[in-house]
Amino acid sequence: MLPVNATLGRRLAAEALGTALLLAVVVGSGIMGQTLAPDQDALALLGNTLATGAALVVLITIFGPISGAHFNPVVTTVMALRRQIEPNPAILYVAAQVAGALAGVALAHAMFGQAIVQVSTHARDGGPQVLSEAVATFGLMATILGASRFRPEATATCVGLYITAAYWFTASTSFANPAVTLARGLTDTFSGIAPASIPGFLLGQVVGAALALAVFDWMFKQEPA
Amino acid sequence: MLPVNATLGRRLAAEALGTALLLAVVVGSGIMGQTLAPDQDALALLGNTLATGAALVVLITIFGPISGAHFNPVVTTVMALRRQIEPNPAILYVAAQVAGALAGVALAHAMFGQAIVQVSTHARDGGPQVLSEAVATFGLMATILGASRFRPEATATCVGLYITAAYWFTASTSFANPAVTLARGLTDTFSGIAPASIPGFLLGQVVGAALALAVFDWMFKQEPA
Amino acid sequence: MLPVNATLGRRLAAEALGTALLLAVVVGSGIMGQTLAPDQDALALLGNTLATGAALVVLITIFGPISGAHFNPVVTTVMALRRQIEPNPAILYVAAQVAGALAGVALAHAMFGQAIVQVSTHARDGGPQVLSEAVATFGLMATILGASRFRPEATATCVGLYITAAYWFTASTSFANPAVTLARGLTDTFSGIAPASIPGFLLGQVVGAALALAVFDWMFKQEPA
Amino acid sequence: MLPVNATLGRRLAAEALGTALLLAVVVGSGIMGQTLAPDQDALALLGNTLATGAALVVLITIFGPISGAHFNPVVTTVMALRRQIEPNPAILYVAAQVAGALAGVALAHAMFGQAIVQVSTHARDGGPQVLSEAVATFGLMATILGASRFRPEATATCVGLYITAAYWFTASTSFANPAVTLARGLTDTFSGIAPASIPGFLLGQVVGAALALAVFDWMFKQEPA
Repeated sequence: MLPVNATLGRRLAAEALGTALLLAVVVGSGIMGQTLAPDQDALALLGNTLATGAALVVLITIFGPISGAHFNPVVTTVMALRRQIEPNPAILYVAAQVAGALAGVALAHAMFGQAIVQVSTHARDGGPQVLSEAVATFGLMATILGASRFRPEATATCVGLYITAAYWFTASTSFANPAVTLARGLTDTFSGIAPASIPGFLLGQVVGAALALAVFDWMFKQEPA
Repeated sequence: MLPVNATLGRRLAAEALGTALLLAVVVGSGIMGQTLAPDQDALALLGNTLATGAALVVLITIFGPISGAHFNPVVTTVMALRRQIEPNPAILYVAAQVAGALAGVALAHAMFGQAIVQVSTHARDGGPQVLSEAVATFGLMATILGASRFRPEATATCVGLYITAAYWFTASTSFANPAVTLARGLTDTFSGIAPASIPGFLLGQVVGAALALAVFDWMFKQEPA
Repeated sequence: MLPVNATLGRRLAAEALGTALLLAVVVGSGIMGQTLAPDQDALALLGNTLATGAALVVLITIFGPISGAHFNPVVTTVMALRRQIEPNPAILYVAAQVAGALAGVALAHAMFGQAIVQVSTHARDGGPQVLSEAVATFGLMATILGASRFRPEATATCVGLYITAAYWFTASTSFANPAVTLARGLTDTFSGIAPASIPGFLLGQVVGAALALAVFDWMFKQEPA
Repeated sequence: MLPVNATLGRRLAAEALGTALLLAVVVGSGIMGQTLAPDQDALALLGNTLATGAALVVLITIFGPISGAHFNPVVTTVMALRRQIEPNPAILYVAAQVAGALAGVALAHAMFGQAIVQVSTHARDGGPQVLSEAVATFGLMATILGASRFRPEATATCVGLYITAAYWFTASTSFANPAVTLARGLTDTFSGIAPASIPGFLLGQVVGAALALAVFDWMFKQEPA
């Protein structure tokens, strides 16, 4: 379909990894749907997914030209490791992300007439949840690194579509973002996470991002001329 | 992801504001879904959202080259303040928008075999609703100002996606438009609003637009060369 | 948002008509959702909408460069009136469309293990249904004429999004196509239409298309230099 | 809508085939929705569809420039027959796809805390299922061959939209991929397929692809200058 100029090893890795992720999506989202549908929770997740995916496309489109639209300490850290942002602004970025995330949760509570400060009681524990966050973050970094390498103008759309898929195919509904995870600890509604479950999520996110950085720096590298 | 050439202050503001809006969407749409799902109202809102988002993309694409496709007195007012439309045509634009909005409600009633003229009994009162409209309109203006500044050809898509998200993450389902608000006062169906609730909605919309104009004239301004 | 170079009359007509259609979508799709949700029919229509909108984008993209991808006798007739297709191929186009439509219904029945030939018992009668088809076809022609005039590369996407909206905001679920209407007379499933209801649908479609041709030949015409 | 330069025979074939597929989608997805809605299975399929369609767009965008993003032995075979990939790498592609598919199913199970190795008990037998797979694969190949011929930059989007539609309009929910079919034999969840049903699916897929190759090599060929 598209011009191919990578080594055979990288081509085969792309086929294997792409097909693996495709099957994880097909089978995983089927399990999620089957689990949630009888209690109508699938309807809540559909609305949640639609809104989040759509908003990400818009937010990255309008804020990307100003700040890069990371909105995620893992993304900022990876960009710093790749020397695409200096260490000092990177630290300030993370602080701005965490402050913004907390303010956003408070704003949502205020709009729905709920207590501004809450603590989640929604436990999300166990190995499968940690694994889900590792897979979710691995996929998010693959999306960002691949789209910005091959089709930068499609990055906003790809991130929105990736999160749309990831809400359904991971058992954790794909937080994939430490600032988002911390902030969702402070809402006792549909999207919350009990504080005790947060360390496992952060662990999964860091492992997934590190793995993605290793794999895709190799797979997406420029061929020597 | 994208070239960054703004001052650090504006970059940090973009990270904080973007992450705040992202969390407001994630948490808010989760609350909305959880609230509506047991009564199947989430299904009605899903269809309502899908239709409105899709229609906006089409309507802005085909009418944008003729009139700018404002469809919204708040948008026309902001454009007039930024001297992108003269005062006299702006007043006529608003009149055309209100007349069109009333005609559209009557047309929907006629298509579904309902009484043409109705008055809504759906109360949407209280501070959280007013706040929701301020947030909804702030986000809509951010979308329009950002997309037309950085990716004008994507404005139609971004507005459609923004409203898709805003139907779910604001407690008011995001009217964000005085002409739409007035006209929805005249339908006693799913999307109606009782006339007594209208002034609060208009207040929220004006405040949200004014705030957006202040923030984004600063955030999105051209750097001196 | 976009450069404006039309006369004020056409600009005001675009604002009024666009806002009218927007409200018809917002209110109409709300009524549709509210009507269908309690019986779960909203779920069936959601799947039906998603599939049809997505398929239209693909079919117009891949067959457009070969035939223009009309798939609709009303579209072919309008193109013939605008001298974009000669009369003789136009007649053959319509025959091919009707034959294809009948074959497609038979194929759907075969895939689902149903009787190949059926006759619908789903009555869709009355003035509101005829009006719905007029509005649906008017909007479809507006979409095709506007997109092909201003953003031809976006025509496939716009038609897919328009039908996505029209399935929900018109009381008839938007057939907007005589070949589709005839063929759906031959399925006694969700999407069928009783033969006795067909003439009213065809009448609405012709009236809507004629009205669109008159309005948009004026609104979208080239300005004299 | 678009420039037309094909012979009349190919234009008429495009109109007939396009309209046939459109009706198969409209009627088929209506039957699917009506069948699944009362048991809430339509909700599970909606989530499954949304995730798979979105993921395909992303995966093809990011892996396409490396390997071509086939993810499907039928696609690789067709590309080999058209001499767009050499036989030896083609065989390795298929091995990578099958290995990746098996790994993806195991990953989904691990994320949802299920037994890693399962065998499906979901029988999907009979002529209509085989026919469905032939139609699904025919349409997938039409999408890939048409998009890569006329709008290569839209291939990822078109494949994602096509599968979105095909999940609903085919009675088999459109596997259309031998590697996916084999791997889904190893999950006893929503998306599984009993091993005894697999040979019929593979037969349908091969027949559909062969038919597509014959039809579209003719319909999409370059005109002599």
